[in-house]
Order: sequence, then structure tokens, then C-alpha cells
Amino acid sequence: MGGDHGPSVTVPAALQMLRDDAASGVILVGLATEVEAQLQQAKAAFGDRLVVRHASEVVGMDEPPALAMRGKKDSSMRVAVDLVKSGEAQAAVSAGNTGALMAISRYVLKTLPGIDRPAIASIMPTHNGQVYVLDLGANVDCTAEHLLQFGLMGSELVACVEHKTNPTVGLLNIGEEDIKGNEVVKQAAELLRASGLNFYGNVEGTDIFKGTTDVVVCDGFVGNVALKSAEGLAQLIRTFLRAEFERNILTRLAGLIALPVLNAFKRRVDHRRYNGASLLGLRGIVLKSHGSADTYAFDCALKRAVEEVRTGMLAHISERLTHIHGLTQ
Amino acid sequence: MGGDHGPSVTVPAALQMLRDDAASGVILVGLATEVEAQLQQAKAAFGDRLVVRHASEVVGMDEPPALAMRGKKDSSMRVAVDLVKSGEAQAAVSAGNTGALMAISRYVLKTLPGIDRPAIASIMPTHNGQVYVLDLGANVDCTAEHLLQFGLMGSELVACVEHKTNPTVGLLNIGEEDIKGNEVVKQAAELLRASGLNFYGNVEGTDIFKGTTDVVVCDGFVGNVALKSAEGLAQLIRTFLRAEFERNILTRLAGLIALPVLNAFKRRVDHRRYNGASLLGLRGIVLKSHGSADTYAFDCALKRAVEEVRTGMLAHISERLTHIHGLTQ
Repeated sequence: MGGDHGPSVTVPAALQMLRDDAASGVILVGLATEVEAQLQQAKAAFGDRLVVRHASEVVGMDEPPALAMRGKKDSSMRVAVDLVKSGEAQAAVSAGNTGALMAISRYVLKTLPGIDRPAIASIMPTHNGQVYVLDLGANVDCTAEHLLQFGLMGSELVACVEHKTNPTVGLLNIGEEDIKGNEVVKQAAELLRASGLNFYGNVEGTDIFKGTTDVVVCDGFVGNVALKSAEGLAQLIRTFLRAEFERNILTRLAGLIALPVLNAFKRRVDHRRYNGASLLGLRGIVLKSHGSADTYAFDCALKRAVEEVRTGMLAHISERLTHIHGLTQ
Repeated sequence: MGGDHGPSVTVPAALQMLRDDAASGVILVGLATEVEAQLQQAKAAFGDRLVVRHASEVVGMDEPPALAMRGKKDSSMRVAVDLVKSGEAQAAVSAGNTGALMAISRYVLKTLPGIDRPAIASIMPTHNGQVYVLDLGANVDCTAEHLLQFGLMGSELVACVEHKTNPTVGLLNIGEEDIKGNEVVKQAAELLRASGLNFYGNVEGTDIFKGTTDVVVCDGFVGNVALKSAEGLAQLIRTFLRAEFERNILTRLAGLIALPVLNAFKRRVDHRRYNGASLLGLRGIVLKSHGSADTYAFDCALKRAVEEVRTGMLAHISERLTHIHGLTQ
């Protein structure tokens, strides 16, 4: 029951999903008193589709992952991932500490055969739809083989969740020419080209938001910086736009008249819709919600998890790994 | 006389600078007939403050840097950098091929003592002003020592051009904690901490546009991706905003009423003001303008070059290098 807002966000979001999706069920893991209080407030009744599982500990947002993993066997995060391991739950969604979630998931669930390191995949808006980018910070110092594995997992994720056949995969580089980039990226391009994936070739930072490919693959350090730089710029643009409309009485009036348009624009760039990053490469489905997610955003992450379960994403990734395995040996 | 628009942009921009800055002079290097045609059209008369130097060759925007460097001894780019080497010009500004400009500058001018690799530094807008980020793509696979050198050069650049004493330097990482990031970044943090620079510590992608520090230092691969991702997002936001205002007759009307505000906003995020990336670490001042720069943007790059010359930036960097030299040995 982590995240910045705890059960006051996650519980209403879960109830929303239960209302919207009659075939879904939720196990709420956390401090039972807090969770029950939220449920009572909402007067929700979903029978056995809604279960509360008490967990006595909470992983702090800034807690070192190793400490959370070893020291807190009864944290809500650990119990939720344990439920996936035991098969009681088919997916875990957390708004808590990313590092701890990855460490616990990796320790409890283990990686799929053929995957060295799990990756974090997230969705970003583009001119013509959306793009999945991975890795976004789980791995620094990736090898070419890791980047190949990311390409493979990203491709299967998009194929399942977006129902796209043969999604295009781009390799994030600093130029489109084959000769550009560092050694790891050059080798990764060769592996991806021989992989049987629909490999587009190198893409640049601008291509992420252009929607040049369905998947963009990169080292976690690079992906994290790209994502956060774009976030930072979006904040800056928002601040500047607001400041100009709040400059004086006339600009405020103009803002009032333009409000429906500005609101439509806001909905269009609403990052809450893209909430829910997939921890890929594990023997189980785990999603990370933004810590600051509100009810709508957390609900989006929950629905994304359901979609990954229903489309059999894990089996698809495993199958592709079996086919491709010879390549990286 | 490169760039996407050639002398039709660079010549009027140079004339603008000559008008605005009575102490400046310009040597226009390029195909004399083309340059003269532009000058005649503008009916400009600046006496000996304006000189035309013929260069018979042009480096193509997609030409491999090595080819441009070795094969075209009479390209406008090469001749302009040669003028800096000979002391006839105090700085060179080009809107041409970045790779070729860097290769030629490095070959002709050489690096300053204590600098292994020149870096590309560019300005980006922040909530409270602007930030200088380097490297933006000249170097991939940087070592910790390179990042230290970038920090040092960026610090002196800001101290000179922005007249700031002791500018703050941030190290781009994927978390603020010291334990985060790859090995190179961790080592670089130690070197920067011991350098005598005003080292802030690790910063994240969002901090670039927050303006957390005056300088942000990163590997060229990472910096290039960060810059281009942000550019891509800015384009996306622009497209979405325009699309919403052009949706129907009512939204168009709202757009018309809000036009002065939207224009003020546009001026505020106008990237042309930030045009002119410094190639730092060379024994001479060279600036790279965006290839697609218009007259206003190219004029900004020219004025930036003048500022670097007048504030004695090169001497300041050299001096700092002498002081710091022991550290990296």
C-alpha cells in the first residue's frame, strides 16, 4: 500500500476496476486497518472478488532496496509479490519504491530462462499513438545481449497488449547511421538485425515522441535520463503556459475563453493514461505505478496488468526466448 | 556557408550583428559569388568590418567527417577554422555538419593541454533562467576524467559568458543518491568533488529544466539522447496544442482571442535564442549553429561567439586546467 498517497488512492482505484471489469478480482495487500477503513468509507461490496490480505510492514519510498528485500518479509510489497509466486494472484501492482519492487520481484519470482536482467518498460505518447520504451532505469551498463533481450520482451509486450503483429523495434542511438554510437549499441544493432524481430534500426531521441517505432530499446541509464528530461521539459512548458495566461486581467480572460481548448489539450497530454510500467523478464507479472499516481492513474496501471495477464504475455515472451536462444549463446 | 539554408541565412545574420555591435567584424567564408549576391541584395556597407573570403568547396550535411577533413582542404568550414588557427579570426561559427566541424576543428586547432576530448556545450531554458549542458554528442564512452574536464570547461564557460562567480556543476545520473548510476559516473562524482569546482552532486533528467545547477555534465551519448528526447516532446506538445486550437470554428476563435498570450508563450520557449553550441576544449573558439537556424537564431550564435572572445574564455579554461592538472594524473 505504498506510493505517495497510500490506500486513499490505491483502494478507490481497485474498486473502480472491479466496477469496470466484471471478470476481475483484487487482493488488497497492506495494513488491514487502513485498507478496511478505506473500504468502509467507500461502502464497497464485491463479494469474493475483493479480498484484503494483511501485511504488517511498509517499504519506505527512500528505503534501500536490499534492506527492504532482506529485512521486511511482511511488507505489503513482498506479500503481494509472494502472492504472484504462489499463483494466488496473477499480477502485482505497486506504487511504491521502484528499486525495492524490482529487487523483491527478482528475488522472489526469478527471471525467465534466457533473460539476464529484468527491464522496466513504460509507455509514452507519440504523434500517432504511443511507444514502449525500455529499459528505464533497472539496468545501467547494459551489454548488447541485454539490449537484444529488451527488444524481444518489448516486442512481445506490444504484440500482446496493443494487439499488433510484428511490432517495429528501434535502437536508441545518437544518429541514424550504422557507424554512430558506442560499441555496445553497434553490437546490439547486429544482434537485433539477426534476431528475427522487426528491427527498424537506429532511432534518435526525437524519434521516441515521433512514434517512429512501436518499441524503443536502450540502456537503463540512457532511458531514465531521456524519460526524466522529457518530463522536466513538459513541466517547464506547463509552467510557462500557465504564467502567460495568468499575467494580467486580459490574459486571464483570454485563458477563460480558451479554457475548453486548453482542457482538451491537457487531456491529450495527460500522462496519467500512460501510468503503469511493466517489470519485464520476470516469471510473473509485476507493474510499477508512479508514486504520485491518483486514483485514475492507478486504475490505468491495474487495467494494464489485467491486459498483460489476459493476453498471456509471459508465455509469449518465453516462447520467443526459446526460439531466439541460440543467438546469444 | 553550410546549414540547411546557406548564405541566405548566414549573410543577413552577420549583417545584423555588424549593425548591433559596432566593435565586431565578420569574415564571410564561402563561395564568393553566392556570398556577394547576398551582400548586393542587402546593400550592406560596413567597410573593412566585413570581408569575404572565397572557399571553393562545401562540406555536405551528411558527409562523413573524416572525408570532409581529409578531402576538402578548401571547404568553407576548413577555411573558417584555418582563419582561427592563423589568428585572422577570433572565432568560427558554422551551421554545417557537426561531426565534420568537430573533426576539422580538432585537427586544425588541437585540444588545450589537459583536455583529452573536446565537448559540445549547449544552452537550455529552465524555470529560472538557463543551464549549460555538455557533452551533447561529441564523445561516447566517456571516462570519469573526461566528465571532470567537461565540468571544468562548462564552469568556466558559464563564469565568462553569464558572468557568474563559481557556477554550480551537476553530474547527470539516474538518482540523486551517491550509490546510484554506473561506475564511470560514480568515479566522476569523486573527481568532481575533489576538483575545487562548485560541485552540486548528482542531478537527474528533470533537474536540467528545473535549473537545479548552472552546468550539467554527462557522457555525449546520454546528453544527445536527453536533448533530442526533450526536443521531440516539445514538438509533440506544439503539434497537440495547435491541433486543439484548429479543431473547429469555436476553438479557432478562442485561439484568435488567446493569440497574444500564445505568442508570448512561444517567445518564451523560443529555442532560437539558445542557438549556438560551443565546441569546448579546443585552442580556439568554434561554435556550431543549428543546421535549420534562421537569421535570428544564427545571429544569436554569432553574438555568443563574440561574448566568448571578449570575456577571454579560452584563457580562463587554460588557467583552470593548470590548477587542476595534478588531479587527473
